[in-house]
Amino acid sequence: MTSHASNLEARLALAEAVAREGGAMALDYFKRRETLVIETKRDPQDVVSIADREVENLIRGRFNEAYPDDGVLGEEYGLEAGTSGFTWVVDPIDGTSPFINGMPNWCISIALLHEGVPVVGVICAPCHDELYAAALGLGATLNGKTLRLDPTRTIRNSVTGIGSNNYVTPAFVGKMVESLLAAGGNFIRNGSGALMLAYVAAGRLVGYYEPYMHAWDCLAGYCLVKEAGGWYQSFPTEGEGLTKGAPVLAAAPGAIKDLRQVAGL
Amino acid sequence: MTSHASNLEARLALAEAVAREGGAMALDYFKRRETLVIETKRDPQDVVSIADREVENLIRGRFNEAYPDDGVLGEEYGLEAGTSGFTWVVDPIDGTSPFINGMPNWCISIALLHEGVPVVGVICAPCHDELYAAALGLGATLNGKTLRLDPTRTIRNSVTGIGSNNYVTPAFVGKMVESLLAAGGNFIRNGSGALMLAYVAAGRLVGYYEPYMHAWDCLAGYCLVKEAGGWYQSFPTEGEGLTKGAPVLAAAPGAIKDLRQVAGL
Repeated sequence: MTSHASNLEARLALAEAVAREGGAMALDYFKRRETLVIETKRDPQDVVSIADREVENLIRGRFNEAYPDDGVLGEEYGLEAGTSGFTWVVDPIDGTSPFINGMPNWCISIALLHEGVPVVGVICAPCHDELYAAALGLGATLNGKTLRLDPTRTIRNSVTGIGSNNYVTPAFVGKMVESLLAAGGNFIRNGSGALMLAYVAAGRLVGYYEPYMHAWDCLAGYCLVKEAGGWYQSFPTEGEGLTKGAPVLAAAPGAIKDLRQVAGL
Repeated sequence: MTSHASNLEARLALAEAVAREGGAMALDYFKRRETLVIETKRDPQDVVSIADREVENLIRGRFNEAYPDDGVLGEEYGLEAGTSGFTWVVDPIDGTSPFINGMPNWCISIALLHEGVPVVGVICAPCHDELYAAALGLGATLNGKTLRLDPTRTIRNSVTGIGSNNYVTPAFVGKMVESLLAAGGNFIRNGSGALMLAYVAAGRLVGYYEPYMHAWDCLAGYCLVKEAGGWYQSFPTEGEGLTKGAPVLAAAPGAIKDLRQVAGL
């Protein structure tokens, strides 16, 4: 094993532990969200914002402690640059809308960037007791079980995940749904892009497309998909790219061509 | 208590027990689906079809035993007419696509029709350990906790569920997504219409719209939504209507007007 791989193994193990710890904290907020709204006289959006910040603080603290020279980019507190060449990219709660509304489809997403590529990807879905973990060259797992994509799955015999937000127009989203269905596909949208990318790695979805996403939403999922044998549309991680958004597309081998066509990528 | 209400209470209690029993059987198939595909050398679609039929057989058997004069309509085996004026309407597994692909969003849906109206609605989501139950005039519950919709929720501050299938064109679905977003709404689609209707009753979604659904997909959810304080677009249950499909729309009070506009209903 090269020293680079052993570096990755240690960081992967840390990311798994930290994702579980952050997941447990978020789950505690999730279960108490109705009481918290009443007790704090805040609205549900405030409660999820508090949970988001607390979980990101916890995760940042753990990485700062173990790897003080690594950078950290989080959805809530932005980018703290590092000097090691490694940058952690964290979404403390992806799927805040399901979280607020009491639905289980939300997750903690942690990626590690090295030379512009996501080399570690860990996603923890606390309501489903699932931990997805991958590192470049080391494969992808779900709760310890190796993930390997089935090349016979296509958009026509499987389901595709989609997402959207206010960065794109209603007409654009309508058109993208129409194109996917017209190509013989079918779609779900569970409210968490990061979790749907993990589902692509697990073979539950054959692909995921969202016209505009941020680095913290997609990089962990990208690493998982790649290590499970899939493909992703590369994400701009240089300069401003890392904090701005870009189109996100990931797919199992048999769905790449069709989904690139649907997405025009 | 009238004798009619006490009739309903006994049938509601039976429906809850039967939904749990059917849910446990389906969950067992769900957990073994990969092994079953290999062992039986069948494809995943065959395995879910077997599970569907076995669960419906179990449910039919329980209702025939307890109420031999009630009718039963199930997705798999069609309509057995009764003489009591009561008809059970059963979807043994709603959300077969999530089920096949290893996603948790599927459920068992049991409704009881009386004089064209769903008077009992029970939905069991085994992967989430949730049982939704309602009877006309007796309220709606989730795992025993009373459900009561919040009148301040609208399509703009909440999430709407949608569904579609091959009965409608890709262009129609694209347009419906566009209209919902243009009206300020947001959507999810978790793969089970019955479960999303239960989510409307639980206040997790503010409404659910699908342009074409069958009676077994929607009647249990309709009863739940109504008893939680919501509204539904009535479903044609006379004659052929019961086995053919129709548009389905259910909503919390603050979303009715907007969603009727989106759906053109």
